[in-house]
Amino acid sequence: MDSISLDFSHGNEAGSLMEELLKGKAAAGLAKQQEAVSQAYNTLLQGNGKGNDFLGWIRLPEEIQAETLEDISAKAEEFRKKSELFICIGIGGSYLGTRAIIEALKPQLSDRMPGAPAVIYAGHQLNQDYMNELLALLDKHEYTVCVISKSGTTTEPAIAFRLIREHLTAKYGKAEAGKRIAAITDRQKGALRTLADTEGFPSYVVPDNIGGRFSVLSPVGLFPLAVAGIDIKSLIKGAADMQKRLTVPALDWGKNIAAQYALFRQYQYVQQHKKVELLVNFDSRFHFLSEWWKQLYGESEGKEGKGLFPSNAGFTTDLHSLGQYIQEGERLFFETVLSLENQHTRLQIPSDRENLDGMNFVAGKEMAYVNRKAEEGTILAHARQGNVPVLRISVPRLNAFHIGQLIYFFEFACGLSGYSMDVNPFDQPGVEAYKQNMFRLLGK
Amino acid sequence: MDSISLDFSHGNEAGSLMEELLKGKAAAGLAKQQEAVSQAYNTLLQGNGKGNDFLGWIRLPEEIQAETLEDISAKAEEFRKKSELFICIGIGGSYLGTRAIIEALKPQLSDRMPGAPAVIYAGHQLNQDYMNELLALLDKHEYTVCVISKSGTTTEPAIAFRLIREHLTAKYGKAEAGKRIAAITDRQKGALRTLADTEGFPSYVVPDNIGGRFSVLSPVGLFPLAVAGIDIKSLIKGAADMQKRLTVPALDWGKNIAAQYALFRQYQYVQQHKKVELLVNFDSRFHFLSEWWKQLYGESEGKEGKGLFPSNAGFTTDLHSLGQYIQEGERLFFETVLSLENQHTRLQIPSDRENLDGMNFVAGKEMAYVNRKAEEGTILAHARQGNVPVLRISVPRLNAFHIGQLIYFFEFACGLSGYSMDVNPFDQPGVEAYKQNMFRLLGK
Repeated sequence: MDSISLDFSHGNEAGSLMEELLKGKAAAGLAKQQEAVSQAYNTLLQGNGKGNDFLGWIRLPEEIQAETLEDISAKAEEFRKKSELFICIGIGGSYLGTRAIIEALKPQLSDRMPGAPAVIYAGHQLNQDYMNELLALLDKHEYTVCVISKSGTTTEPAIAFRLIREHLTAKYGKAEAGKRIAAITDRQKGALRTLADTEGFPSYVVPDNIGGRFSVLSPVGLFPLAVAGIDIKSLIKGAADMQKRLTVPALDWGKNIAAQYALFRQYQYVQQHKKVELLVNFDSRFHFLSEWWKQLYGESEGKEGKGLFPSNAGFTTDLHSLGQYIQEGERLFFETVLSLENQHTRLQIPSDRENLDGMNFVAGKEMAYVNRKAEEGTILAHARQGNVPVLRISVPRLNAFHIGQLIYFFEFACGLSGYSMDVNPFDQPGVEAYKQNMFRLLGK
Repeated sequence: MDSISLDFSHGNEAGSLMEELLKGKAAAGLAKQQEAVSQAYNTLLQGNGKGNDFLGWIRLPEEIQAETLEDISAKAEEFRKKSELFICIGIGGSYLGTRAIIEALKPQLSDRMPGAPAVIYAGHQLNQDYMNELLALLDKHEYTVCVISKSGTTTEPAIAFRLIREHLTAKYGKAEAGKRIAAITDRQKGALRTLADTEGFPSYVVPDNIGGRFSVLSPVGLFPLAVAGIDIKSLIKGAADMQKRLTVPALDWGKNIAAQYALFRQYQYVQQHKKVELLVNFDSRFHFLSEWWKQLYGESEGKEGKGLFPSNAGFTTDLHSLGQYIQEGERLFFETVLSLENQHTRLQIPSDRENLDGMNFVAGKEMAYVNRKAEEGTILAHARQGNVPVLRISVPRLNAFHIGQLIYFFEFACGLSGYSMDVNPFDQPGVEAYKQNMFRLLGK
């Protein structure tokens, strides 16, 4: 099966060193960071580092049972059949992964996968007008709800769920409402577990040993994805394929693309003093994957005054907004390009007799061909003219398998990268600060 | 009329100095940057600085004729009447401003303003699957097109326009197609001007003395906004109100909020060595205004190795992704909060007898009240605990008038800020690099 792959040829100084390394030569300039990533690799796989009670995601893809996937798929099918709209309540790790995968795989000008309900997100913010619009929409459509919260007491999803559950009960009665809510929550404790057990909601478990930002391949993502019409078996198959490639007993630099990515990042951060990693794409379906990636890396590394600040852009759109800064502003960043090798459809640029716009030089070519040349041209402009090191991650096509690969790749590299920076990649102590202030101001 | 306003009380060191200054005291710590902004103010209003052939936006809101607005509105009404879909073709400054205003003002779960066609964007990227989806949609709906390009030869919009014009002509015949395309382009030269004149398209002029990123209050934005159902008269009224406040002969630090913003930014950049400005919001309707702002500031300042890198986030959503980094990662940034004072609708959080989720302490409160406390709590967490200086920009409500104010405010402050950094805020030489490489790779 073809796979996602990395290209370091425009990584400038680090790129040359990486290419040496991948040819099997010793690249002395990388030695220090190589040592750090090697140690991180052992720590991660041996499970003896900081935050090691949150490593359940490492073996998840290969360990997940076929029956679990069948059970989720069957229940999702029930939900799908009675939904025009499917309301997905969650925030952070209970929201971004699911949305990232749906947005990557659904048609761009439709609100749903073929044959599936439209997914509407809630509980990911506190926007009152949005919630009123949503409640008005729910008056008019058949819907089901999935609420994802480990504790059941996180402010945003808790408020959204109160409002939507009230609406659902008024619309369908208590008994039917109980069949239209799926809860994904703690195995045994917490508000949502208690409620789900009392009311008999179908429910799934947020594993104890997997943190939110690493949880999309658990029921946290799998159930809503299945309702939304995503092929969760292929998704897991892709992730398991990547798990097999990356988690071998002895680190093989030539084959382990997660270790390569972690090494490249470490070099940029430590040796080149880069402060920002720009994850860019040339296909807007990658947008929410970038948002998911921002949580994954920002929350894992951004502590103790450390970390690469994760930022993103969508090209060619943003070449006409951020492009100027990237080309000629402060040299703060390196760039990681999410590159899509194939589109689903074909489309030739038509010829025009008068050729007033001067575009006949690409007539007969596919639009994707021009986009590909824009990508190559941009990489050259940034790496050579702009002195921004560029790493390219190629994704063969947008399907569940390759997205599964990509997700596991980013997760594993993130674990390596966090340990290499000597932080605990699996906690997020700083997220509490705003909450505590908010609760105080609310008089809690 | 109420107005947008600034709050420096959480700006830490710079905030205290700004508050001194606004009380009329001399703030010695600010003197150097004050001098730079004062000079920039004079340069901008006297029109004797770099790029001074692109200052047409400064007096645009007050100078625009009532008849021009009437004419645009009347033509837009014609288009609206025969459109289920309205296709807006443009990139960069011919795209972001229009989208920013529509997304700020339209209902969030609808694709259109009441009584107006849905707006679909094209020519802002080179996505082949997207274009095929769009063409399939155009088979099924009545539509009109607006194409915005000064030259008519920019790759992305030129390719999109070729494909869509071909579709339109096949669907409606040449004569009717000519009445369903509006061109916004150069006054007299270029591919699109020639085509519009030859084919008799209704057309509007991209002013010669206004660059793309400053053009949304010209016909570049006004025509598509009017078709989309935006109140362009109120928009211009808001901008003119702000023009009047900001462009008085002698700079008044106590009243000139654009000068205040430019000064605060300069202080962060020069004295505090901040590298990133994070524009955040607590209402997702500001998202595309942030995207527009990123072009405005990034393209104006990001040159000669200088400039604050413009980045954005949407809260509370992203407090559960980037929040950790902002709170505890590298101290790279200051934060500018777009704060919305009022929602359009009301919604109370219901009480729950069992209170399993523990949210009864906010039962009976509006959801917006909780959001407001989240905002206050976040500002405290970032400014005090996280040592991230915070500036708050308050917007009374989301309507065309205040958005007009906000746009002019950001534009004028951007001119001041660019001159203060001693760059030409009105050119974008770096945008050409990727294009030249692309053309070479395409064999042009």
